[in-house]
Amino acid sequence: MAPIRVAIVGLGKIARDQHLGAIEATDGIELVAVASRHAKLDDIACFHEIGDLLASDVKFDAVSLCTPPVGRFEQAKAALDAGKHVMLEKPPGATLSEVYALEKLAKAKGVSLFSTWHSRAAAAVEPARALLAKRKIRSVAVEWKEDVRHWHPGQAWIWEPGGLGVFDPGINALSIVTRILPESFHLTRSELTFPANRAAPIAASLSFETDSGVPVSAEFDWRQTGPQTWDIRAETDEGPIVLTHGGSRLFVDGKSAIVEEDREYRNLYRDFVTLVAESRSDADFSPLVHVADAFMLGRRIQTDVFED
Amino acid sequence: MAPIRVAIVGLGKIARDQHLGAIEATDGIELVAVASRHAKLDDIACFHEIGDLLASDVKFDAVSLCTPPVGRFEQAKAALDAGKHVMLEKPPGATLSEVYALEKLAKAKGVSLFSTWHSRAAAAVEPARALLAKRKIRSVAVEWKEDVRHWHPGQAWIWEPGGLGVFDPGINALSIVTRILPESFHLTRSELTFPANRAAPIAASLSFETDSGVPVSAEFDWRQTGPQTWDIRAETDEGPIVLTHGGSRLFVDGKSAIVEEDREYRNLYRDFVTLVAESRSDADFSPLVHVADAFMLGRRIQTDVFED
Repeated sequence: MAPIRVAIVGLGKIARDQHLGAIEATDGIELVAVASRHAKLDDIACFHEIGDLLASDVKFDAVSLCTPPVGRFEQAKAALDAGKHVMLEKPPGATLSEVYALEKLAKAKGVSLFSTWHSRAAAAVEPARALLAKRKIRSVAVEWKEDVRHWHPGQAWIWEPGGLGVFDPGINALSIVTRILPESFHLTRSELTFPANRAAPIAASLSFETDSGVPVSAEFDWRQTGPQTWDIRAETDEGPIVLTHGGSRLFVDGKSAIVEEDREYRNLYRDFVTLVAESRSDADFSPLVHVADAFMLGRRIQTDVFED
Repeated sequence: MAPIRVAIVGLGKIARDQHLGAIEATDGIELVAVASRHAKLDDIACFHEIGDLLASDVKFDAVSLCTPPVGRFEQAKAALDAGKHVMLEKPPGATLSEVYALEKLAKAKGVSLFSTWHSRAAAAVEPARALLAKRKIRSVAVEWKEDVRHWHPGQAWIWEPGGLGVFDPGINALSIVTRILPESFHLTRSELTFPANRAAPIAASLSFETDSGVPVSAEFDWRQTGPQTWDIRAETDEGPIVLTHGGSRLFVDGKSAIVEEDREYRNLYRDFVTLVAESRSDADFSPLVHVADAFMLGRRIQTDVFED
């Protein structure tokens, strides 16, 4: 089978940090074009925006969308309308309505839609899922605390409506928890802390319950300097199962079980190649559903102004 | 076929104003029990809560849930787990995750779940839908403005997280628009106005686009005294189609086409009887999806304190 010819739309930080290298390292897919307002790559066909790319004579099969969520619907729709497979960075869109519409459109067009959650592709996630399926879970606690100044320097959009604030990293945790728990769960309490000068939260404190009543808590905070915390801890009848480092390390009953270097984005592109080969989609929007619920049910707390 | 024996859970304002009379007026369904923390009915088996009802020897087939959305999941789940059909007042729940879980559970249990939208049952909604399917729509404007002091006197829960504020009526408009438009649509702008002393918005200004780019605007406001406004106006290639009075009156190209007395809740119970007879569910959560999107994408504006 010929490699998938993919175009990256949105050549910003995440595309450069992760996507370019992952495509390069993955069999079955190759980069043939870029559409970006501000950036270019040498030796690759570059366009200002996806409309120009679609109107060009560049032959390609798929689009990997790396733009911020607001405004992405039109790009994804244009690609799907043209019969291209589409891979979406997380979060998949600015609203649930629009991602549901994309899912429907991809089905109608007979192309693959891959709504990626890079944290789900971390090494310890599937092993944790398998373990938790066999145990009785008593409670789950998520702690996702990082330094926004380090990870999102000067990214103004992330503080605007639709940028999601601390849910931009928090949704990564939710993408893992929705994958590893054997039951679905729903929000029962949400407290969102907003800096006085920002339209998006800098911290969130959430309580969920699974369908059978197991408590799940999540604390997201963007104000953590020093060591960063990306941990998910499940108490079970046989002892704790703990995912740390964003899902790349696993501790079972106190013992280290898995430690692996980061291969998340290479795993995503490998999965995309498989989805396209098998004419399937993978569009689970449940992490974004939880975020929308957290805003809808959220009680606002105001805190100090935040300056970059 | 024997009538459906239904129990009302939550004997508050909406149950007394609408449900009791509608059940009484509908063939094929009869009220056999009530579960309510604070209220009782003469000559009907009454219980403090649904758990007591389920543990009793009262025979019944279905539950009509009229409690406020927060806390409703456990009640609906208990009913579904016990194999009862369930009818949900709007909004169907406090979160999307929980209503998706209820939909899954009803399917697994083989019972009917009816997520009602009473405004969709208004007389002019289906005629408007049929007309709009045949025309080219240029734009849609929703104006839903009422006096909260008149319609929700002293209902504190409506101002709390999950109470939805002005979206409690606004979701009625969204339930009509999602029904009558031939395309789905998604939010592109949301401004939410919160009283300084309340956790829920008193007004909302929303812009949507349909999948093909037709603009849809919605203005919700709870501060309208005097005449109340519940209008939806679609400009089409052949002239305007206007729904007024919450969907009970229709004006086509400037001429009055339908005027009918309010039969919304009788229509809902008639539909519930049909759904149960045909072993079907009707669970379209798209109006709540739009509300969750409006909170997630919402820009907050603060306004004067509001006192009842």
